[in-house]
Amino acid sequence: MWGLRLPPTPSPLQMRKKTMKTGFDFNIMVVGNSGLGKSTLVNTLFKSQVSRRSAGWTRDEKIPKTVEVKAVSHVLEEGGVKMKLTVIDTPGFGDQINNENCWEPISKYINEQYEKFLKEEVNITRKKRIPDTRVHCCLYFISPTGHSLRQLDVEFMKRLSHSVNIIPVIAKADTMTMEERQEFKQRVRKELEMGGIEFYPQKEFDEDMEDKSDNDKIREAMPFAVVGSDKEYQVNAKRVLGRKTAWGIVEVENPNHCEFAQLRDFLIRSHLQDLKEVTHNIHYETYRAKRLHENGGLHPTGLCRHGATASLHALDMFQPIIMCPFL
Amino acid sequence: MWGLRLPPTPSPLQMRKKTMKTGFDFNIMVVGNSGLGKSTLVNTLFKSQVSRRSAGWTRDEKIPKTVEVKAVSHVLEEGGVKMKLTVIDTPGFGDQINNENCWEPISKYINEQYEKFLKEEVNITRKKRIPDTRVHCCLYFISPTGHSLRQLDVEFMKRLSHSVNIIPVIAKADTMTMEERQEFKQRVRKELEMGGIEFYPQKEFDEDMEDKSDNDKIREAMPFAVVGSDKEYQVNAKRVLGRKTAWGIVEVENPNHCEFAQLRDFLIRSHLQDLKEVTHNIHYETYRAKRLHENGGLHPTGLCRHGATASLHALDMFQPIIMCPFL
Repeated sequence: MWGLRLPPTPSPLQMRKKTMKTGFDFNIMVVGNSGLGKSTLVNTLFKSQVSRRSAGWTRDEKIPKTVEVKAVSHVLEEGGVKMKLTVIDTPGFGDQINNENCWEPISKYINEQYEKFLKEEVNITRKKRIPDTRVHCCLYFISPTGHSLRQLDVEFMKRLSHSVNIIPVIAKADTMTMEERQEFKQRVRKELEMGGIEFYPQKEFDEDMEDKSDNDKIREAMPFAVVGSDKEYQVNAKRVLGRKTAWGIVEVENPNHCEFAQLRDFLIRSHLQDLKEVTHNIHYETYRAKRLHENGGLHPTGLCRHGATASLHALDMFQPIIMCPFL
Repeated sequence: MWGLRLPPTPSPLQMRKKTMKTGFDFNIMVVGNSGLGKSTLVNTLFKSQVSRRSAGWTRDEKIPKTVEVKAVSHVLEEGGVKMKLTVIDTPGFGDQINNENCWEPISKYINEQYEKFLKEEVNITRKKRIPDTRVHCCLYFISPTGHSLRQLDVEFMKRLSHSVNIIPVIAKADTMTMEERQEFKQRVRKELEMGGIEFYPQKEFDEDMEDKSDNDKIREAMPFAVVGSDKEYQVNAKRVLGRKTAWGIVEVENPNHCEFAQLRDFLIRSHLQDLKEVTHNIHYETYRAKRLHENGGLHPTGLCRHGATASLHALDMFQPIIMCPFL
């Protein structure tokens, strides 16, 4: 259904079986102004009504007065593999007259999930499998203005790029002609570079030359200009997901129309596992190290409320526990 | 070229001739976030490169850090009638992180033009024809979110609707399907009504039943969902203005594709004269009365700098001088 492929690297058969049995978590956050098709895109990605506003934008829903963070979980199953998908929506982002600090509730949510994970990890009698609510990926929706990034775009990505994997996408790409799209993409890439914004996949985390070569191609094609839809139409005797207008049907999965298929392949097929690993090994580790540093290796009583207490310093002895189900 | 029609009401031949000789002013302001196609739409309306960013959005242009108000004038001629068209652009509107008070420079500009006109009007030896820089029409561009109006939209229109003729339009309408457009238009109309926002043509200024009936039809069809373009394509052996995508050509002037033609007819053909009259008889008069009131009928020395001074109170004796060239 949503087209997950088990990772191409060889994995011990037993672990694979376990993953198939226990399933795995994937937590995706969507950020951007209202009306950029965030919910529709996530529903299109997973071919399921997984987003909060699953049945289309409810007609009487008002834009909230402050930024809210709302997580909704679903269990999806394909080919015997279960995925607990959590979609974290951020309604109200960028919709206020004054949007100062509107990234704060989002940053707070991301850190709270790290904190939760850390608390579980330091317990002496800890769970065999720590529930993972950490945000593995943040899709940031850029408005298809054809001009340049907005201050808020730059500010958000700059501030959050060191604590979460940000994947910028150009929303509602059907509003641009092919020339406009190419020009806009180029300008956005330049502005991201000039702003020193590191989006996923980050260059510094390429593991080897092959990795670098693959990721370079992806980075050069980013941000993907996408269109989402949950409606199907008949095109050349085939049912396709699309948007029907008086001048034609925009086909979501047609690479000549938009880059949805590229985004989906990148996100769900080739890099899902890596998104989880970078979250655990880089972003979470950064958070953890900062917390250790803050506590100076002392007994962080505030951290371990549930039963056993452990020195945060002692955590240094642990190898990071990769929660990846496929390894 | 830009399709002006002399007004259908009978006008004395002599006055018509005079208008054709002297020409007339029309000042149109465009307001809305960057990237909503403001410049392109104005260029499409007048089939001319009249907007500041006439040669397409210049590639290295940055969004300004504050709202700017920039007026550019052109003389257009058609069928012997000259029009001095001034396009007032407002770059930076709604593009900041904090957009509080971003309507102020715009409101200030509008009032400054009234003040300028008033100063000329109170001069004892005044010009035969006062140059008219007053904003006759403010096109407000609503983002095609498919959701609802933004706080900033409501706030701007609420604050300015009593000092200028606001015509709300839904920008870049090719991003919506027909169903989405109808639904969005209906919702926007409802929100405008609930917000107590009076846009042009204002109900209270309908002059008679015929006027009311004509304007009711227009009001029920507003806000027009428009698409602009300065590119031509061959469609069914005809050259049409449009936007070419991989799935078809959006034809700007095709009423099945968008409502550009309706907006143009309304704005330039049927209501241009009325826009000028409402500006003069209502908005300017409101401003003038307020200024008179503030000055309490005393000699407003500050007002009449250039030569003769006159009591603002004395202005009450004057009939409003309609600068309309077609009457």
